[in-house]
Amino acid sequence: MIAESLTCQPALVSMRDLDVRTVEALIHRAEEFKHGAQLELAEPVFAANMFFENSTRTHTSFEIAERRLGLSVVDFNPQASSVSKGETLYDTCLTLAAVGVRLLVIRHSQDAYYQELLNQPALPVALINAGDGSGEHPSQSLLDMMTISETFGGFSGLKVAIVGDLNHSRVARSNMEVLKKLGAQVYFSGPEAWYDKRFDCFGQYLPMDELVDQVDVMMMLRVQHERHSDDASFDQADYHQQYGLTLERAKRMKSDAIIMHPGPINRGVELASDLVECPQSKFVEQMRNGVFVRMAMIESVLRGNQLGGLA
Amino acid sequence: MIAESLTCQPALVSMRDLDVRTVEALIHRAEEFKHGAQLELAEPVFAANMFFENSTRTHTSFEIAERRLGLSVVDFNPQASSVSKGETLYDTCLTLAAVGVRLLVIRHSQDAYYQELLNQPALPVALINAGDGSGEHPSQSLLDMMTISETFGGFSGLKVAIVGDLNHSRVARSNMEVLKKLGAQVYFSGPEAWYDKRFDCFGQYLPMDELVDQVDVMMMLRVQHERHSDDASFDQADYHQQYGLTLERAKRMKSDAIIMHPGPINRGVELASDLVECPQSKFVEQMRNGVFVRMAMIESVLRGNQLGGLA
Amino acid sequence: MIAESLTCQPALVSMRDLDVRTVEALIHRAEEFKHGAQLELAEPVFAANMFFENSTRTHTSFEIAERRLGLSVVDFNPQASSVSKGETLYDTCLTLAAVGVRLLVIRHSQDAYYQELLNQPALPVALINAGDGSGEHPSQSLLDMMTISETFGGFSGLKVAIVGDLNHSRVARSNMEVLKKLGAQVYFSGPEAWYDKRFDCFGQYLPMDELVDQVDVMMMLRVQHERHSDDASFDQADYHQQYGLTLERAKRMKSDAIIMHPGPINRGVELASDLVECPQSKFVEQMRNGVFVRMAMIESVLRGNQLGGLA
Repeated sequence: MIAESLTCQPALVSMRDLDVRTVEALIHRAEEFKHGAQLELAEPVFAANMFFENSTRTHTSFEIAERRLGLSVVDFNPQASSVSKGETLYDTCLTLAAVGVRLLVIRHSQDAYYQELLNQPALPVALINAGDGSGEHPSQSLLDMMTISETFGGFSGLKVAIVGDLNHSRVARSNMEVLKKLGAQVYFSGPEAWYDKRFDCFGQYLPMDELVDQVDVMMMLRVQHERHSDDASFDQADYHQQYGLTLERAKRMKSDAIIMHPGPINRGVELASDLVECPQSKFVEQMRNGVFVRMAMIESVLRGNQLGGLA
Repeated sequence: MIAESLTCQPALVSMRDLDVRTVEALIHRAEEFKHGAQLELAEPVFAANMFFENSTRTHTSFEIAERRLGLSVVDFNPQASSVSKGETLYDTCLTLAAVGVRLLVIRHSQDAYYQELLNQPALPVALINAGDGSGEHPSQSLLDMMTISETFGGFSGLKVAIVGDLNHSRVARSNMEVLKKLGAQVYFSGPEAWYDKRFDCFGQYLPMDELVDQVDVMMMLRVQHERHSDDASFDQADYHQQYGLTLERAKRMKSDAIIMHPGPINRGVELASDLVECPQSKFVEQMRNGVFVRMAMIESVLRGNQLGGLA
Repeated sequence: MIAESLTCQPALVSMRDLDVRTVEALIHRAEEFKHGAQLELAEPVFAANMFFENSTRTHTSFEIAERRLGLSVVDFNPQASSVSKGETLYDTCLTLAAVGVRLLVIRHSQDAYYQELLNQPALPVALINAGDGSGEHPSQSLLDMMTISETFGGFSGLKVAIVGDLNHSRVARSNMEVLKKLGAQVYFSGPEAWYDKRFDCFGQYLPMDELVDQVDVMMMLRVQHERHSDDASFDQADYHQQYGLTLERAKRMKSDAIIMHPGPINRGVELASDLVECPQSKFVEQMRNGVFVRMAMIESVLRGNQLGGLA
């Protein structure tokens, strides 16, 4: 009952909007879906997944979450849309709302693109942010929290390292904040050039070799080659040796520590290829949990907008 | 009953094929759908939306209309199709028909592309034209007529201005003809270079400032930048001042006159941005009506081809 | 009963894996579907069609086969996927499996791409090869066999010519092998540069004019212009005269002989345009049969992986 009232949001665009109890309630609901809970919509709801940036796992995961909840998913291909004729994002959303789409899941390269879409009377839609520029990626953050919570039963006192391309990662940004709120102790590692002094208030920066045997969670970030295209000097093997989770480093991890990665993985760069599916890796489990977390998020915004016959 | 027999077409490709009573019957049926009428297909029907030109609103609107009628919509991406291997449109349609698709909704850059698809025994499909080159766009035309009919209760004596890129607009072409048939008085405005003497038989060309306080409907057309790519001298602010619906001009409109636009809008070019969602604007209502008009069109061609168990 | 146990495969990736009885059982099951057999899945199954090479007929045919069997088809667009971020095919499949996709239908330009996907415990999916590089195309091969079997009632003693771009055709490769296994006599024709001595063990090479009045099946292959892009000297009219099925040659065919083509057709190159839909042509029937053959294949791999509640 408490969970239900907490998981009733007008929109889900930023982890910053969510207090600790709401995060816990969403994770709890996701676990219920994982264990077979069903939801019946009393009225049909059309959803559109608007991915202006490439994605396999987030896009497919949202689509499967939508279908499992009984929504009708409308094809939206940005390359074939009127966006290519110069239409604004607001006008494209206005169009989709006018033709009857009631859930918009959006990934867009512009930071906080959603600000112009919120609280618009002409947009009677439920909105979920599936990633904004270098901003946030709340569904990834929630599935990470669900995976940690499932493994350790809670966050208090847990030591979590976030390693790698911190500056470009919307996952890192969301996670450092929510982990601190939830009571975990955050550490950072990776190239210092990709570390921002503003992260200091969330945790401590340490070299990989000092971190690896201390932490409970080793959260590796993807090197976003597409955002470093000007950097011809980037050497993958060198990165792996200095900042990656090598097989040698993995052996020094605590016996019950886990490895996480949001995907897609650059095998042999962030992570030795053999670690991707090793027993300590939660990579596949994170993706599995993603569907259930997204079902909980969708239910929450449908309720928050009285859609699908949900109160 | 009369409506039903009129809305039973083998194909819907051109407004020229439709007499006044059929147009009225389709609008009437669309209004029934808008007020909740349901249709049950007795047999499953597969539809494919073949959009060889970009579109958000028309594509999504047809897809939602199809799904609301219970059709099964098959993914068709022209970039990933055999068209890129040089297959002709006829052969692609032959393929879709052979695998069981029974409704084809096609947008194509070639004028009257549909001629080679009609009356082909090997193509046992229902066909709807969603836009051909600089030809026609019947579903847009019908949704425009529905929106005018809803607002004014009829067409007789109504003064309707069509303003802007008349030469390139398939909407303009369909609308001037059908408006005249329905008893409205048509006016034109916009750059004279984009006006064709052949339009004279449908209505009168006037400068914007002489038109704006006389008409009941101000139908603004999109400047199709993608068709004026060679024209580097085009100045948006200048266009707006000379031919656009500025805030000043809008104030001079009759109090019950309405503003229409087929979308996507170039805000600040055809139309002052603040007018898009002003009380006189029917922009959102047009898109809303589009779904219901398309449901009526689809029902009509399904009946005309005895598909879905419809007589 | 026998058919059922034979049509229960862990994966369907190569015709080489299938013995004669399995091929016959799959064709038999496809004929049952063609005559109205229904299959009810006891549990929902998500399918993804991963087409890394362009296709209309194979892609749409699989999608319709999936939907007719009640599967839920998830949108997968390789251009918009993480493959463009450098993700491996294995990791993309791992992702789709993790989010709940259980049937993967894959077309990929790499020969035998499927080897790295088979027998992977982390990939609890049913896999169908929809074309690998210059390798195989088993669903096309089976629909060809079904069409021949339907026409002639069997294969024993039948004379089948495979004509054209033999080196690049995955259809040719699969078909020459399976036709020989099934008891047919295979002949080849077309440019000698596109003929490989290794085909000698399957049949005899003859000039078109010696073949045309002897064979029961004239199987024309598509000239794959996209794979001959460096060959500016290719002359279509010349090819047609030397190696194509001209109207003149068609007249010399046996009265009950049939013409086949996997599509898409280059009209006037492999085949005179007027022959595409002539009475002897099975071009449309092949595409029609394709849906039923794919239904049989999908059922087989669902059974082989105990998916959808099928034993």
